[in-house]
Amino acid sequence: MKRLLIVAHGSRRDASNEEVRVLATRVAEHLQLAVDNVQVAFFELATPSIESALDACFNNGVDEVSVLPYFLSSGTHVVNDVPREIAAMQEKWPDKIIKVLPHIGAAETMVSLIASTYR
Amino acid sequence: MKRLLIVAHGSRRDASNEEVRVLATRVAEHLQLAVDNVQVAFFELATPSIESALDACFNNGVDEVSVLPYFLSSGTHVVNDVPREIAAMQEKWPDKIIKVLPHIGAAETMVSLIASTYR
Repeated sequence: MKRLLIVAHGSRRDASNEEVRVLATRVAEHLQLAVDNVQVAFFELATPSIESALDACFNNGVDEVSVLPYFLSSGTHVVNDVPREIAAMQEKWPDKIIKVLPHIGAAETMVSLIASTYR
Repeated sequence: MKRLLIVAHGSRRDASNEEVRVLATRVAEHLQLAVDNVQVAFFELATPSIESALDACFNNGVDEVSVLPYFLSSGTHVVNDVPREIAAMQEKWPDKIIKVLPHIGAAETMVSLIASTYR
């Protein structure tokens, strides 16, 4: 059993965190997957944390989680903090597979997405 | 004369800021515009600031700037800080047009972009 885990920064504004949760639901629909196949975790300021989201997945029989760092550029969270948390979780769950995808800002289609907002 | 101004958060990591600058260049290419038609400003931690980027545009004869908040969700920067800075700049340059686009996370195609990273 596999899952996509969208890891966002997290905000003090509930509406902002809710925006990411809604997005995850829409991604699941887009992929024609059941809603719980695409989950959200927050680096800080909101719940669930990366650790508790991964624990929940693995405790529920998920074998593999693809972690998508939902960050636009490779700042310290993308380069240091998230990988460190993931490494700790991989150590905690040595029999499970955790794949870290490139951060969303590195997606090839980001260029056309930005361009489409302008014209 | 019009410009697209991509406003990113800014990072202490130069490589992260440079990533946004490269993206802007690629967006200009994608839109088949000269490179300086798509510019970058940073909310904090990097230069140019929003203020100096807009001043530079308007001092160089630009009439209209579309500001794209390059943020994934509507946190306080998107909801409060960036609009406040833009309002101040609009007051400073009453004869110029500053349009604020929806933040990039609200783009309709973000769902398919995320989905494409997973499969």
